[in-house]
Amino acid sequence: MTDKGLVKPVGELALNDVAAGTATQNQVLLGEDDGMPNFAMRRFVMGEGGGMPLHTNLVEHEQYVLSGRGRVRIGDETHEVKANDAVYIPAGVAHSYDVVEAPFAFLCVVPNAPDRIDLVEAD
Amino acid sequence: MTDKGLVKPVGELALNDVAAGTATQNQVLLGEDDGMPNFAMRRFVMGEGGGMPLHTNLVEHEQYVLSGRGRVRIGDETHEVKANDAVYIPAGVAHSYDVVEAPFAFLCVVPNAPDRIDLVEAD
Repeated sequence: MTDKGLVKPVGELALNDVAAGTATQNQVLLGEDDGMPNFAMRRFVMGEGGGMPLHTNLVEHEQYVLSGRGRVRIGDETHEVKANDAVYIPAGVAHSYDVVEAPFAFLCVVPNAPDRIDLVEAD
Repeated sequence: MTDKGLVKPVGELALNDVAAGTATQNQVLLGEDDGMPNFAMRRFVMGEGGGMPLHTNLVEHEQYVLSGRGRVRIGDETHEVKANDAVYIPAGVAHSYDVVEAPFAFLCVVPNAPDRIDLVEAD
C-alpha cells in the first residue's frame, strides 16, 4: 500500500467510445491501474440521441447523475433520472439508457470483479 | 438478490451533522441499508469555514468533487481540489479537508467493511 493519494481532474482524462452504446463515451477516473483495491469509479457521457440498449452486467452499478436527463430502464421499471439522482442497478439485471437531455453524464462505480456485457432482447 | 433498482434524488435525503467535522454534513445515498453488496456511496457537504481535521480511516475513499473548492491533505501532500476532480485517499493514510469555496460538496465511496475515525495530531 502506498500512502500517496491521487487527484485527477476529469478534463485531463481520455474519453473512450463505448462499443455497445450510441453517442456514448466513458473514462476511468479511478481504476485497477491506479491501484484501487476494491472498486473502480468511471464516468459516462452520452450525447444527443445517445444511449445503451438493454443489457446485463455481471457486477452491480452504483451511479450518480452529474448532468442532463436520461431514461433508465432497470428490470421492468423505467425511471427518468436527472442531475443529483443516485441510481442502483443490481448485478445481472437488464438495464438500458436513453438520453432525454444531453449531455447526460453520470458516475458509475463497479466492484473489482470480472464483468461482461450481454445484450438482451427488449420485450 | 432483488431485481429492483433504486433511484434516490439527493434532495429527498436527510443530511446529518458529522461530529468530527466543522460545518460538515453527510448523507448516505446508497448504503448497506439499501442492500448494497460491496460498497456505499455517501455525499459530504461542507459550508463556509468548514472542514475536517487530520484523521485516519480503516477504509479507502474514492471521491468525486461536485461543487466548490477545498484543500485536501493526504499524507504529506496538500492538494487544492475543485468540481469534477476525482480524489483517492488510501486506507489508513491521514487526511484532512478545509473549505476554500463553499459549498464544498463531494461524493465519497467506501467499501462495506468496519471503519473507525482516529484523529491525528497535525505536525
